[in-house]
Amino acid sequence: MVSKNQIKLITSLQQKKYRINNQLFFAEGVKVIQELLQSNFELEHLYTTQFDFEEVPAAKKSLIHENDLKKISALATPNSCLAVFKIPQQKEISNSGLIIALDDIRDPGNLGTILRLCDWFGIKQVVCSKETVDIYNPKVVQATMGSITRVNVSYVDLAEYITQTQLPVFGTFMDGENIYKNILPQEGIIIMGNEANGISEEIEKIIKNRLSIPRFGDLQKTESLNVATATAIILSEFKRNLA
Amino acid sequence: MVSKNQIKLITSLQQKKYRINNQLFFAEGVKVIQELLQSNFELEHLYTTQFDFEEVPAAKKSLIHENDLKKISALATPNSCLAVFKIPQQKEISNSGLIIALDDIRDPGNLGTILRLCDWFGIKQVVCSKETVDIYNPKVVQATMGSITRVNVSYVDLAEYITQTQLPVFGTFMDGENIYKNILPQEGIIIMGNEANGISEEIEKIIKNRLSIPRFGDLQKTESLNVATATAIILSEFKRNLA
Repeated sequence: MVSKNQIKLITSLQQKKYRINNQLFFAEGVKVIQELLQSNFELEHLYTTQFDFEEVPAAKKSLIHENDLKKISALATPNSCLAVFKIPQQKEISNSGLIIALDDIRDPGNLGTILRLCDWFGIKQVVCSKETVDIYNPKVVQATMGSITRVNVSYVDLAEYITQTQLPVFGTFMDGENIYKNILPQEGIIIMGNEANGISEEIEKIIKNRLSIPRFGDLQKTESLNVATATAIILSEFKRNLA
Repeated sequence: MVSKNQIKLITSLQQKKYRINNQLFFAEGVKVIQELLQSNFELEHLYTTQFDFEEVPAAKKSLIHENDLKKISALATPNSCLAVFKIPQQKEISNSGLIIALDDIRDPGNLGTILRLCDWFGIKQVVCSKETVDIYNPKVVQATMGSITRVNVSYVDLAEYITQTQLPVFGTFMDGENIYKNILPQEGIIIMGNEANGISEEIEKIIKNRLSIPRFGDLQKTESLNVATATAIILSEFKRNLA
Protein backbone atom coordinates (compact mmCIF):
# COMPACT_ATOMS: atom_id res chain seq x y z
CA MET A 1 0.00 0.00 0.00
CA VAL A 2 1.29 3.45 -0.90
CA SER A 3 -0.32 6.41 0.85
CA LYS A 4 -1.63 9.44 -1.00
CA ASN A 5 1.13 11.54 0.54
CA GLN A 6 3.79 9.11 -0.63
CA ILE A 7 2.37 9.15 -4.17
CA LYS A 8 2.33 12.94 -4.09
CA LEU A 9 5.92 13.12 -2.84
CA ILE A 10 7.34 10.57 -5.28
CA THR A 11 5.63 11.94 -8.38
CA SER A 12 6.74 15.45 -7.36
CA LEU A 13 10.34 14.19 -7.55
CA GLN A 14 10.01 14.12 -11.33
CA GLN A 15 10.50 17.88 -11.04
CA LYS A 16 13.86 19.38 -10.14
CA LYS A 17 12.55 21.93 -7.64
CA TYR A 18 10.93 19.22 -5.53
CA ARG A 19 14.07 17.09 -5.72
CA ILE A 20 16.02 20.06 -4.37
CA ASN A 21 13.42 20.89 -1.68
CA ASN A 22 13.29 17.30 -0.45
CA GLN A 23 16.89 16.37 -1.28
CA LEU A 24 15.52 13.12 -2.70
CA PHE A 25 15.45 11.38 -6.09
CA PHE A 26 14.18 8.02 -7.30
CA ALA A 27 15.35 5.17 -9.48
CA GLU A 28 13.43 2.34 -11.14
CA GLY A 29 14.37 -1.21 -12.07
CA VAL A 30 16.26 -3.94 -10.22
CA LYS A 31 19.63 -3.34 -11.87
CA VAL A 32 19.90 0.40 -11.25
CA ILE A 33 18.48 0.13 -7.71
CA GLN A 34 20.89 -2.66 -6.79
CA GLU A 35 23.85 -0.67 -8.06
CA LEU A 36 22.74 2.36 -6.02
CA LEU A 37 22.26 0.17 -2.91
CA GLN A 38 25.73 -1.32 -3.33
CA SER A 39 27.37 2.09 -3.62
CA ASN A 40 27.23 5.00 -1.21
CA PHE A 41 23.70 6.17 -1.96
CA GLU A 42 21.47 6.28 1.12
CA LEU A 43 18.11 4.56 0.66
CA GLU A 44 15.04 6.45 1.85
CA HIS A 45 12.50 3.78 0.89
CA LEU A 46 12.06 0.91 -1.55
CA TYR A 47 8.73 0.01 -3.17
CA THR A 48 8.63 -3.38 -4.85
CA THR A 49 6.00 -5.74 -6.27
CA GLN A 50 8.13 -8.78 -5.39
CA PHE A 51 10.48 -9.19 -2.44
CA ASP A 52 13.88 -9.81 -3.88
CA PHE A 53 15.88 -7.27 -1.87
CA GLU A 54 17.07 -9.26 1.14
CA GLU A 55 19.78 -6.72 1.88
CA VAL A 56 17.19 -4.02 2.60
CA PRO A 57 15.81 -3.95 6.19
CA ALA A 58 12.02 -4.43 6.52
CA ALA A 59 11.43 -0.87 7.77
CA LYS A 60 12.92 0.51 4.56
CA LYS A 61 10.83 -1.47 2.08
CA SER A 62 7.18 -2.02 1.18
CA LEU A 63 5.61 -4.76 -0.88
CA ILE A 64 3.13 -2.99 -3.13
CA HIS A 65 0.62 -3.88 -5.82
CA GLU A 66 1.38 -3.30 -9.50
CA ASN A 67 -1.38 -0.70 -9.63
CA ASP A 68 0.31 1.29 -6.88
CA LEU A 69 3.64 1.07 -8.69
CA LYS A 70 1.95 2.56 -11.74
CA LYS A 71 0.86 5.55 -9.63
CA ILE A 72 4.41 6.40 -8.52
CA SER A 73 6.36 5.35 -11.62
CA ALA A 74 7.66 7.76 -14.25
CA LEU A 75 7.75 4.98 -16.85
CA ALA A 76 5.06 4.18 -19.40
CA THR A 77 5.64 0.50 -18.60
CA PRO A 78 6.68 0.35 -14.92
CA ASN A 79 9.33 -2.07 -13.82
CA SER A 80 8.92 -4.22 -10.68
CA CYS A 81 10.41 -1.72 -8.23
CA LEU A 82 11.07 1.93 -7.46
CA ALA A 83 13.42 3.26 -4.80
CA VAL A 84 13.72 6.73 -3.30
CA PHE A 85 17.26 7.76 -2.36
CA LYS A 86 18.78 10.78 -0.61
CA ILE A 87 20.68 13.13 -2.93
CA PRO A 88 24.29 12.89 -1.76
CA GLN A 89 26.38 15.98 -1.08
CA GLN A 90 28.21 17.19 -4.18
CA LYS A 91 31.74 15.80 -4.05
CA GLU A 92 34.74 17.93 -4.91
CA ILE A 93 35.76 17.96 -8.55
CA SER A 94 38.61 15.60 -9.31
CA ASN A 95 40.98 17.59 -11.52
CA SER A 96 43.07 14.79 -12.94
CA GLY A 97 42.93 12.55 -15.97
CA LEU A 98 40.37 13.21 -18.67
CA ILE A 99 37.27 15.18 -17.75
CA ILE A 100 34.15 15.54 -19.87
CA ALA A 101 32.50 18.98 -19.56
CA LEU A 102 28.94 19.50 -20.79
CA ASP A 103 27.86 22.90 -22.10
CA ASP A 104 24.05 22.87 -21.71
CA ILE A 105 23.10 19.30 -22.58
CA ARG A 106 19.29 19.34 -22.35
CA ASP A 107 18.17 15.83 -23.28
CA PRO A 108 18.04 13.37 -20.34
CA GLY A 109 18.75 10.39 -22.62
CA ASN A 110 21.88 12.10 -23.96
CA LEU A 111 23.21 12.85 -20.46
CA GLY A 112 22.52 9.26 -19.37
CA THR A 113 24.22 7.82 -22.45
CA ILE A 114 27.24 10.11 -21.97
CA LEU A 115 27.59 8.96 -18.34
CA ARG A 116 27.48 5.33 -19.51
CA LEU A 117 30.21 6.11 -22.06
CA CYS A 118 32.35 7.82 -19.41
CA ASP A 119 31.96 4.75 -17.21
CA TRP A 120 33.04 2.49 -20.11
CA PHE A 121 36.11 4.59 -20.90
CA GLY A 122 37.11 5.02 -17.26
CA ILE A 123 36.35 8.75 -17.07
CA LYS A 124 35.79 9.56 -13.39
CA GLN A 125 34.61 13.17 -13.58
CA VAL A 126 31.90 14.95 -15.58
CA VAL A 127 31.51 18.71 -15.14
CA CYS A 128 28.18 20.23 -16.22
CA SER A 129 27.10 23.80 -16.86
CA LYS A 130 24.25 24.88 -14.59
CA GLU A 131 21.85 24.74 -17.57
CA THR A 132 22.61 21.06 -18.21
CA VAL A 133 19.77 18.67 -17.35
CA ASP A 134 19.81 17.48 -13.73
CA ILE A 135 21.57 14.18 -13.13
CA TYR A 136 18.79 13.14 -10.71
CA ASN A 137 16.08 13.56 -13.36
CA PRO A 138 14.43 10.07 -13.42
CA LYS A 139 15.05 9.73 -17.17
CA VAL A 140 18.75 10.42 -16.68
CA VAL A 141 19.03 7.98 -13.77
CA GLN A 142 17.34 5.36 -15.96
CA ALA A 143 19.54 5.98 -19.00
CA THR A 144 22.79 5.78 -16.99
CA MET A 145 22.08 2.09 -16.27
CA GLY A 146 23.96 2.38 -12.95
CA SER A 147 26.91 4.43 -14.23
CA ILE A 148 25.68 7.23 -11.97
CA THR A 149 27.34 5.36 -9.08
CA ARG A 150 30.79 5.34 -10.71
CA VAL A 151 31.15 8.77 -12.32
CA ASN A 152 31.28 11.96 -10.27
CA VAL A 153 29.02 14.63 -11.75
CA SER A 154 29.45 18.28 -10.70
CA TYR A 155 27.45 21.37 -11.67
CA VAL A 156 29.49 24.57 -11.99
CA ASP A 157 29.76 27.92 -13.75
CA LEU A 158 31.44 26.33 -16.76
CA ALA A 159 33.16 29.45 -18.12
CA GLU A 160 34.66 30.18 -14.69
CA TYR A 161 35.75 26.56 -14.24
CA ILE A 162 37.51 26.42 -17.62
CA THR A 163 39.14 29.82 -17.16
CA GLN A 164 40.70 28.73 -13.88
CA THR A 165 41.93 25.28 -14.91
CA GLN A 166 45.56 24.44 -15.63
CA LEU A 167 44.49 21.49 -17.81
CA PRO A 168 44.40 21.65 -21.64
CA VAL A 169 40.87 22.33 -22.89
CA PHE A 170 39.49 20.59 -26.03
CA GLY A 171 36.41 21.17 -28.11
CA THR A 172 35.23 19.85 -31.48
CA PHE A 173 34.33 22.25 -34.27
CA MET A 174 33.79 22.00 -38.02
CA ASP A 175 37.07 23.85 -38.63
CA GLY A 176 39.15 22.07 -35.96
CA GLU A 177 42.18 19.84 -36.51
CA ASN A 178 41.58 16.24 -37.59
CA ILE A 179 41.12 14.30 -34.32
CA TYR A 180 42.51 11.15 -35.98
CA LYS A 181 45.86 12.84 -36.70
CA ASN A 182 46.50 14.59 -33.40
CA ILE A 183 48.40 13.27 -30.41
CA LEU A 184 45.85 13.37 -27.64
CA PRO A 185 46.95 13.61 -24.02
CA GLN A 186 45.56 11.63 -21.07
CA GLU A 187 44.88 14.79 -19.08
CA GLY A 188 42.49 17.48 -20.14
CA ILE A 189 38.95 18.78 -20.31
CA ILE A 190 36.84 17.79 -23.34
CA ILE A 191 33.87 20.12 -23.90
CA MET A 192 30.70 18.76 -25.50
CA GLY A 193 28.13 21.30 -26.69
CA ASN A 194 24.37 21.71 -26.62
CA GLU A 195 22.24 19.51 -28.93
CA ALA A 196 20.94 22.37 -31.09
CA ASN A 197 23.57 25.09 -30.76
CA GLY A 198 26.83 23.27 -30.09
CA ILE A 199 29.42 24.91 -27.86
CA SER A 200 28.37 28.40 -26.74
CA GLU A 201 30.32 31.47 -27.91
CA GLU A 202 31.39 32.30 -24.36
CA ILE A 203 32.96 28.85 -23.91
CA GLU A 204 34.36 28.68 -27.46
CA LYS A 205 36.53 31.76 -26.77
CA ILE A 206 38.31 29.93 -23.94
CA ILE A 207 39.01 26.71 -25.87
CA LYS A 208 42.61 26.55 -27.10
CA ASN A 209 42.56 23.09 -28.73
CA ARG A 210 40.10 22.94 -31.60
CA LEU A 211 39.51 19.41 -32.86
CA SER A 212 37.27 18.07 -35.60
CA ILE A 213 35.72 14.67 -36.36
CA PRO A 214 36.16 14.21 -40.13
CA ARG A 215 33.03 13.58 -42.14
CA PHE A 216 32.94 10.99 -44.94
CA GLY A 217 29.41 11.37 -46.26
CA ASP A 218 28.02 13.96 -48.67
CA LEU A 219 29.70 17.09 -47.29
CA GLN A 220 26.93 19.38 -48.51
CA LYS A 221 24.16 17.52 -46.81
CA THR A 222 25.09 15.35 -43.85
CA GLU A 223 24.23 17.60 -40.97
CA SER A 224 25.86 16.66 -37.71
CA LEU A 225 26.49 13.92 -35.21
CA ASN A 226 24.32 13.50 -32.16
CA VAL A 227 26.21 14.70 -29.05
CA ALA A 228 26.28 11.21 -27.47
CA THR A 229 27.69 9.52 -30.59
CA ALA A 230 30.24 12.35 -30.96
CA THR A 231 31.30 11.77 -27.34
CA ALA A 232 31.69 8.05 -28.13
CA ILE A 233 34.03 8.77 -31.05
CA ILE A 234 36.07 11.34 -29.12
CA LEU A 235 36.54 9.17 -26.02
CA SER A 236 37.43 6.17 -28.19
CA GLU A 237 40.05 8.28 -29.95
CA PHE A 238 41.56 9.68 -26.74
CA LYS A 239 41.81 6.20 -25.23
CA ARG A 240 42.60 3.87 -28.13
CA ASN A 241 46.38 3.92 -27.78
CA LEU A 242 46.10 2.69 -24.20
CA ALA A 243 44.04 -0.39 -25.02
CA MET B 1 -8.73 22.14 -42.67
CA VAL B 2 -8.01 18.45 -42.32
CA SER B 3 -10.92 16.05 -42.88
CA LYS B 4 -11.80 13.28 -40.45
CA ASN B 5 -10.74 10.71 -43.02
CA GLN B 6 -7.37 12.39 -43.48
CA ILE B 7 -6.82 12.45 -39.71
CA LYS B 8 -7.76 8.78 -39.52
CA LEU B 9 -5.42 7.85 -42.38
CA ILE B 10 -2.43 9.85 -41.13
CA THR B 11 -2.66 8.71 -37.52
CA SER B 12 -3.04 5.12 -38.74
CA LEU B 13 0.36 5.50 -40.44
CA GLN B 14 1.98 5.39 -37.02
CA GLN B 15 1.37 1.64 -37.29
CA LYS B 16 3.39 -0.53 -39.63
CA LYS B 17 0.46 -2.54 -41.00
CA TYR B 18 -1.32 0.62 -42.18
CA ARG B 19 1.89 1.96 -43.69
CA ILE B 20 2.16 -1.30 -45.66
CA ASN B 21 -1.52 -1.33 -46.65
CA ASN B 22 -1.42 2.26 -47.86
CA GLN B 23 2.23 2.29 -49.00
CA LEU B 24 2.54 5.66 -47.28
CA PHE B 25 4.56 7.14 -44.41
CA PHE B 26 4.88 10.61 -42.92
CA ALA B 27 7.62 12.96 -41.78
CA GLU B 28 7.48 16.04 -39.56
CA GLY B 29 9.55 19.20 -39.43
CA VAL B 30 10.84 21.55 -42.13
CA LYS B 31 14.34 20.09 -42.35
CA VAL B 32 13.40 16.42 -42.79
CA ILE B 33 10.52 17.24 -45.17
CA GLN B 34 12.73 19.47 -47.32
CA GLU B 35 15.37 16.76 -47.58
CA LEU B 36 12.72 14.22 -48.62
CA LEU B 37 11.29 16.66 -51.19
CA GLN B 38 14.74 17.30 -52.66
CA SER B 39 15.46 13.59 -53.01
CA ASN B 40 13.47 10.96 -54.87
CA PHE B 41 10.61 10.56 -52.40
CA GLU B 42 7.21 11.19 -53.94
CA LEU B 43 5.03 13.59 -51.97
CA GLU B 44 1.43 12.56 -51.35
CA HIS B 45 0.40 15.66 -49.43
CA LEU B 46 1.92 18.38 -47.26
CA TYR B 47 0.14 19.92 -44.27
CA THR B 48 1.68 23.12 -42.96
CA THR B 49 0.73 25.91 -40.56
CA GLN B 50 2.79 28.43 -42.56
CA PHE B 51 3.38 28.47 -46.31
CA ASP B 52 7.09 28.23 -46.78
CA PHE B 53 7.17 25.43 -49.37
CA GLU B 54 7.13 27.29 -52.68
CA GLU B 55 8.44 24.23 -54.54
CA VAL B 56 5.27 22.26 -53.70
CA PRO B 57 2.33 22.76 -56.11
CA ALA B 58 -0.88 24.10 -54.54
CA ALA B 59 -2.83 20.88 -55.11
CA LYS B 60 -0.31 18.99 -53.01
CA LYS B 61 -0.37 21.23 -49.93
CA SER B 62 -2.84 22.53 -47.36
CA LEU B 63 -2.49 25.42 -44.97
CA ILE B 64 -3.87 24.13 -41.70
CA HIS B 65 -4.43 25.40 -38.18
CA GLU B 66 -2.10 24.39 -35.33
CA ASN B 67 -4.94 22.50 -33.69
CA ASP B 68 -5.35 20.37 -36.81
CA LEU B 69 -1.62 19.70 -36.90
CA LYS B 70 -1.88 18.42 -33.32
CA LYS B 71 -4.52 15.94 -34.45
CA ILE B 72 -2.30 14.36 -37.11
CA SER B 73 1.12 14.73 -35.45
CA ALA B 74 2.95 11.91 -33.67
CA LEU B 75 4.96 14.42 -31.64
CA ALA B 76 4.15 15.65 -28.14
CA THR B 77 5.10 19.14 -29.34
CA PRO B 78 4.19 19.30 -33.03
CA ASN B 79 6.42 21.11 -35.46
CA SER B 80 5.00 23.49 -38.10
CA CYS B 81 4.46 20.87 -40.82
CA LEU B 82 3.79 17.22 -41.60
CA ALA B 83 4.12 15.57 -44.99
CA VAL B 84 2.80 12.23 -46.23
CA PHE B 85 5.06 10.48 -48.75
CA LYS B 86 4.77 7.31 -50.82
CA ILE B 87 6.96 4.44 -49.64
CA PRO B 88 9.47 3.91 -52.45
CA GLN B 89 10.17 0.48 -53.89
CA GLN B 90 12.94 -1.31 -52.04
CA LYS B 91 16.16 -0.78 -53.97
CA GLU B 92 18.60 -3.60 -54.60
CA ILE B 93 21.26 -4.10 -51.97
CA SER B 94 24.56 -2.51 -52.88
CA ASN B 95 27.17 -5.13 -52.00
CA SER B 96 30.29 -2.99 -52.01
CA GLY B 97 32.19 -1.01 -49.44
CA LEU B 98 31.24 -1.21 -45.78
CA ILE B 99 27.73 -2.35 -44.92
CA ILE B 100 26.07 -2.12 -41.51
CA ALA B 101 23.75 -5.06 -40.76
CA LEU B 102 21.27 -4.82 -37.88
CA ASP B 103 20.23 -7.96 -36.03
CA ASP B 104 16.87 -7.01 -34.47
CA ILE B 105 17.32 -3.37 -33.46
CA ARG B 106 14.01 -2.52 -31.77
CA ASP B 107 14.35 1.08 -30.62
CA PRO B 108 13.35 3.68 -33.25
CA GLY B 109 15.75 6.26 -31.80
CA ASN B 110 18.64 3.80 -32.10
CA LEU B 111 17.85 2.99 -35.74
CA GLY B 112 17.55 6.69 -36.56
CA THR B 113 20.84 7.49 -34.83
CA ILE B 114 22.60 4.61 -36.60
CA LEU B 115 21.36 5.88 -39.99
CA ARG B 116 22.68 9.35 -39.13
CA LEU B 117 26.04 7.80 -38.24
CA CYS B 118 26.12 5.83 -41.50
CA ASP B 119 25.42 9.03 -43.39
CA TRP B 120 28.29 10.80 -41.56
CA PHE B 121 30.75 8.01 -42.26
CA GLY B 122 29.70 7.59 -45.89
CA ILE B 123 28.10 4.15 -45.46
CA LYS B 124 25.61 3.74 -48.32
CA GLN B 125 23.89 0.49 -47.35
CA VAL B 126 22.20 -0.75 -44.16
CA VAL B 127 20.78 -4.27 -44.10
CA CYS B 128 18.19 -5.05 -41.43
CA SER B 129 16.79 -8.32 -40.12
CA LYS B 130 13.03 -8.58 -40.61
CA GLU B 131 12.54 -8.05 -36.85
CA THR B 132 14.34 -4.71 -36.89
CA VAL B 133 12.08 -1.67 -36.37
CA ASP B 134 10.60 -0.30 -39.60
CA ILE B 135 12.55 2.55 -41.20
CA TYR B 136 9.25 4.35 -41.96
CA ASN B 137 8.20 4.39 -38.30
CA PRO B 138 7.66 8.16 -37.64
CA LYS B 139 10.11 8.11 -34.72
CA VAL B 140 12.81 6.61 -36.95
CA VAL B 141 12.16 9.10 -39.76
CA GLN B 142 12.44 11.90 -37.17
CA ALA B 143 15.65 10.59 -35.59
CA THR B 144 17.41 10.18 -38.96
CA MET B 145 17.31 13.97 -39.47
CA GLY B 146 17.15 13.45 -43.23
CA SER B 147 19.79 10.71 -43.48
CA ILE B 148 17.00 8.41 -44.65
CA THR B 149 17.38 10.04 -48.08
CA ARG B 150 21.07 9.16 -48.40
CA VAL B 151 21.39 5.63 -46.97
CA ASN B 152 19.75 2.64 -48.63
CA VAL B 153 17.96 0.47 -46.05
CA SER B 154 16.96 -3.11 -46.96
CA TYR B 155 15.07 -5.70 -44.94
CA VAL B 156 16.20 -9.30 -45.47
CA ASP B 157 16.52 -12.72 -43.90
CA LEU B 158 19.78 -11.77 -42.21
CA ALA B 159 21.18 -15.29 -41.70
CA GLU B 160 20.57 -16.11 -45.36
CA TYR B 161 22.08 -12.82 -46.52
CA ILE B 162 25.26 -13.31 -44.48
CA THR B 163 25.62 -16.94 -45.47
CA GLN B 164 25.55 -16.05 -49.16
CA THR B 165 27.89 -13.05 -49.08
CA GLN B 166 31.49 -13.11 -50.30
CA LEU B 167 32.34 -10.15 -48.06
CA PRO B 168 34.11 -10.53 -44.70
CA VAL B 169 31.63 -10.43 -41.81
CA PHE B 170 32.44 -8.64 -38.52
CA GLY B 171 30.76 -8.62 -35.13
CA THR B 172 31.76 -7.29 -31.71
CA PHE B 173 31.84 -9.59 -28.72
CA MET B 174 33.31 -9.44 -25.21
CA ASP B 175 35.92 -12.05 -26.20
CA GLY B 176 36.75 -10.64 -29.64
CA GLU B 177 40.05 -9.19 -30.82
CA ASN B 178 40.92 -5.63 -29.81
CA ILE B 179 39.39 -3.44 -32.53
CA TYR B 180 42.09 -0.81 -31.97
CA LYS B 181 44.87 -3.26 -32.88
CA ASN B 182 43.36 -4.90 -35.97
CA ILE B 183 43.77 -3.88 -39.57
CA LEU B 184 40.24 -3.20 -40.73
CA PRO B 185 39.29 -3.46 -44.41
CA GLN B 186 37.12 -1.03 -46.39
CA GLU B 187 34.85 -3.82 -47.57
CA GLY B 188 32.75 -5.95 -45.31
CA ILE B 189 29.57 -6.39 -43.31
CA ILE B 190 29.54 -5.15 -39.72
CA ILE B 191 26.80 -6.75 -37.61
CA MET B 192 25.25 -4.80 -34.72
CA GLY B 193 23.09 -6.76 -32.27
CA ASN B 194 19.82 -6.27 -30.44
CA GLU B 195 19.69 -3.78 -27.51
CA ALA B 196 19.01 -6.41 -24.84
CA ASN B 197 20.44 -9.63 -26.24
CA GLY B 198 23.25 -8.57 -28.56
CA ILE B 199 23.93 -10.62 -31.68
CA SER B 200 21.69 -13.71 -31.89
CA GLU B 201 23.19 -17.21 -31.68
CA GLU B 202 22.15 -18.04 -35.23
CA ILE B 203 24.03 -15.04 -36.62
CA GLU B 204 26.99 -15.40 -34.24
CA LYS B 205 27.75 -18.84 -35.73
CA ILE B 206 28.27 -17.30 -39.19
CA ILE B 207 30.56 -14.46 -38.06
CA LYS B 208 34.22 -15.21 -38.76
CA ASN B 209 35.77 -11.95 -37.56
CA ARG B 210 35.17 -11.41 -33.84
CA LEU B 211 36.13 -7.94 -32.69
CA SER B 212 35.92 -6.29 -29.28
CA ILE B 213 35.79 -2.68 -28.07
CA PRO B 214 38.12 -2.56 -25.05
CA ARG B 215 36.67 -1.33 -21.79
CA PHE B 216 38.57 1.01 -19.48
CA GLY B 217 36.20 1.39 -16.53
CA ASP B 218 35.61 -0.97 -13.60
CA LEU B 219 35.60 -4.30 -15.44
CA GLN B 220 33.37 -5.95 -12.86
CA LYS B 221 30.61 -3.40 -13.08
CA THR B 222 30.43 -1.33 -16.25
CA GLU B 223 27.77 -3.16 -18.18
CA SER B 224 27.73 -2.41 -21.86
CA LEU B 225 27.65 0.26 -24.51
CA ASN B 226 24.43 1.37 -26.12
CA VAL B 227 24.18 -0.04 -29.69
CA ALA B 228 24.27 3.42 -31.30
CA THR B 229 27.38 4.53 -29.39
CA ALA B 230 29.05 1.17 -30.16
CA THR B 231 28.28 1.72 -33.86
CA ALA B 232 29.85 5.19 -33.61
CA ILE B 233 33.08 3.77 -32.19
CA ILE B 234 33.25 0.93 -34.71
CA LEU B 235 32.61 3.13 -37.77
CA SER B 236 35.13 5.69 -36.53
CA GLU B 237 37.71 2.92 -36.15
CA PHE B 238 37.05 1.42 -39.61
CA LYS B 239 37.31 4.84 -41.25
CA ARG B 240 39.95 6.74 -39.27
CA ASN B 241 42.93 5.85 -41.45
CA LEU B 242 41.20 7.31 -44.49
CA ALA B 243 40.60 10.73 -42.95
